[in-house]
Amino acid sequence: MPETTAMNRSPDAAEPQSTGLSRRGLLGLAGLGAVGFAGLGASIAQAAAEQGSTGSDVAATYPFFGDHQAGIVTPAQDRLHFASFDVSNISRAELKSLLSDWSYAANRMTAGRGAGAYGPTNGPYDSPPDDTGEALDLAPAGLTITFGFGPSLFDSRFGLSTKRPAALIDLPAFPKDALDPALVGGDLCIQACSDDPQVAVHAIRNLSRIAFGRASLRWSQLGFGRTSSTTRAQVTPRNLFGFKDGTANLRAEDTSAVAKEVWVQASDGQAWMTGGSYLVARKIRMTIETWDRTSLREQETVIGRTKGDGAPLSGGSEFTAPNFSTVGAQGSPIIPADAHVRLAHPKQNDGAALLRRGYNFVDGNDDLGRLNAGLFFLAYQRDPRTQFVPIQQNLATNDAMNEYVRHVGSAIFAIPPGAKEGRPLGAALFD
Amino acid sequence: MPETTAMNRSPDAAEPQSTGLSRRGLLGLAGLGAVGFAGLGASIAQAAAEQGSTGSDVAATYPFFGDHQAGIVTPAQDRLHFASFDVSNISRAELKSLLSDWSYAANRMTAGRGAGAYGPTNGPYDSPPDDTGEALDLAPAGLTITFGFGPSLFDSRFGLSTKRPAALIDLPAFPKDALDPALVGGDLCIQACSDDPQVAVHAIRNLSRIAFGRASLRWSQLGFGRTSSTTRAQVTPRNLFGFKDGTANLRAEDTSAVAKEVWVQASDGQAWMTGGSYLVARKIRMTIETWDRTSLREQETVIGRTKGDGAPLSGGSEFTAPNFSTVGAQGSPIIPADAHVRLAHPKQNDGAALLRRGYNFVDGNDDLGRLNAGLFFLAYQRDPRTQFVPIQQNLATNDAMNEYVRHVGSAIFAIPPGAKEGRPLGAALFD
Repeated sequence: MPETTAMNRSPDAAEPQSTGLSRRGLLGLAGLGAVGFAGLGASIAQAAAEQGSTGSDVAATYPFFGDHQAGIVTPAQDRLHFASFDVSNISRAELKSLLSDWSYAANRMTAGRGAGAYGPTNGPYDSPPDDTGEALDLAPAGLTITFGFGPSLFDSRFGLSTKRPAALIDLPAFPKDALDPALVGGDLCIQACSDDPQVAVHAIRNLSRIAFGRASLRWSQLGFGRTSSTTRAQVTPRNLFGFKDGTANLRAEDTSAVAKEVWVQASDGQAWMTGGSYLVARKIRMTIETWDRTSLREQETVIGRTKGDGAPLSGGSEFTAPNFSTVGAQGSPIIPADAHVRLAHPKQNDGAALLRRGYNFVDGNDDLGRLNAGLFFLAYQRDPRTQFVPIQQNLATNDAMNEYVRHVGSAIFAIPPGAKEGRPLGAALFD
Repeated sequence: MPETTAMNRSPDAAEPQSTGLSRRGLLGLAGLGAVGFAGLGASIAQAAAEQGSTGSDVAATYPFFGDHQAGIVTPAQDRLHFASFDVSNISRAELKSLLSDWSYAANRMTAGRGAGAYGPTNGPYDSPPDDTGEALDLAPAGLTITFGFGPSLFDSRFGLSTKRPAALIDLPAFPKDALDPALVGGDLCIQACSDDPQVAVHAIRNLSRIAFGRASLRWSQLGFGRTSSTTRAQVTPRNLFGFKDGTANLRAEDTSAVAKEVWVQASDGQAWMTGGSYLVARKIRMTIETWDRTSLREQETVIGRTKGDGAPLSGGSEFTAPNFSTVGAQGSPIIPADAHVRLAHPKQNDGAALLRRGYNFVDGNDDLGRLNAGLFFLAYQRDPRTQFVPIQQNLATNDAMNEYVRHVGSAIFAIPPGAKEGRPLGAALFD
């Protein structure tokens, strides 16, 4: 891991005055107007100019500002820390201020800096540092930080009920759901992705710290070994069933498909969401031990692809389109009616597709010595009513894979468009 | 991640007959003599010759065979999956057979191959694969697999009580221990380290699968961002307190110190352990949220080093030896009497040192929204009675850091010497 020049500053290096945001705001202790965000874009640019840039770090840095949030079509990094938050009993202005403080810190961290000045600007040693320090020597490694708003944020607390988009539905109960209430929902979410897990963890930790007294962690999930395949040039990663996962999904390079299937358009209503997207998160536990005692024939029949190459059972190689009408010697379809690849394929779902960005997880083991492992499914889309929901209804009812998976966590979030310089993320929600 | 040529074989590629080990043995279903291990060294060498080698993979491959087990002085990889096992109600011969099967699979996996032939050798499709598949496209990324034996293995079950080394003590209770019984002890352990978490997880999963019916997971831990610093050339990694961790510890390059402090010598008794070591594992939860609200002054006083550079408070830079007698303006020591760096330093412990190889962990959050995070401490040593135990007695009694940590898991294991070609790991224990 190369060192980041930007981070190798002395502990008492003063924060340039132009950044403005007070520690008071960062620590969530007080007044909480939309403090100090205006000068933000300039200050980061200024800091970069002061410190010079190092080629390797720049290559792994994604800007926080833009038409869309980073972390959606960004080539999927290898590690994830995802967090869902409950907002505390605070005012609308305090919620707006939290988003401002989060934007300030996210912009700094994605640029390879600390969440705040290090050490504190108000008295260098007798206050807590504004950054927790564990990423001080680390490059951002492609860090992206993506924020979202859950349906419950639009209840009566913050005067936002008229701003709730129709597409931000409460997810219906699906057949065979086995949800743990502790792993469901949330007012706000943050997806932090990086090629370095310590960098992703550092981001969530510091954003949680900044939220102290204003929002608290509801549930969180670490992941590794992405199961997305956002460009066709990459090797398709494997899930913990040992199969390539996401072969037939949307690719970031298919810009017209992404525009149609991922980004909310002005014609979709709720102007503050134009350029945004919707995220569905599902924690899917796999019954690993049962799967591992299943024959290779059964495994490939359940999936509808070969385990080695990921080719459809109807023939060809990984990226050959599956032929769902090919029949075998006994007259039945070679890709069975209940195979996962058939049921999940856009061709079988009126063309509905998802931009998947999921990660494998292993959360230790349960009391019976079984690995608590599976897939943390993340899918971005323009409208869950016509994309995730019908696809999942189909899968939950018919998929042969259901014997080996259990959906234990579930959430949906509106992902607002990207922040612009001088304007925090989600600001248009409060207009 | 480069693809591994060795793994890109077709699903039904036959296993060379010379490897011998039957699926029956691998799946733990039956007879369980010490099957098929004899031809093992040759078969891997043969396979390598068949497949050719790719430069980048070779560089990240550590041999399973050797005088010492890999994963101790091996430069610390970035990711960890550690597992502790309870042995089931099986015979001494079955235990020996399990170690043979584990050695067979570990030798294959560290060489970048599957845990077993892929697909199965007995009927290509109507049996479970002998490898779970999720690492099929991945290079070994420096995978090491290190096995150990807990004190309980030497009870009456397997006729091993006379083989228990005196140094394999039951760890004493330390002041302020807050151990969770579910995170303590174990008959056997496996430490899997790799720069790719999916590769480490794949190793533990497949070894657990192979143990089915013979040993079951008792507890397990994933980790990232090593806190060891096994060579002085590397940047010292940071723990989740945000401080550099392990600066004054043993380095693998100090071969005379390693010989004296890490490897068991013939004169230490129990000949089967010569060339081995002892591992102490402690799961140390940090009260992150409390720490993060502590002033920088307090943080640095607790540690005894600066947060930015890791320099001792007595002056200099990171690798300057701390001067414990330097006093400040008020006549008290600049590095306080209860500072962690003072209490843990070899100078304050009759020269006792540890080869540390720990990892940070974040296991989601607890019900109160606090990150369940901390340090999974792993330390190798020649004799815990004169190394870990007195150091930890000192720390547990006096360390100012105790206010911010809680030891929740604990275990000790005898780490036998390396396996030799044709002889499974730990075979000398049964002589």
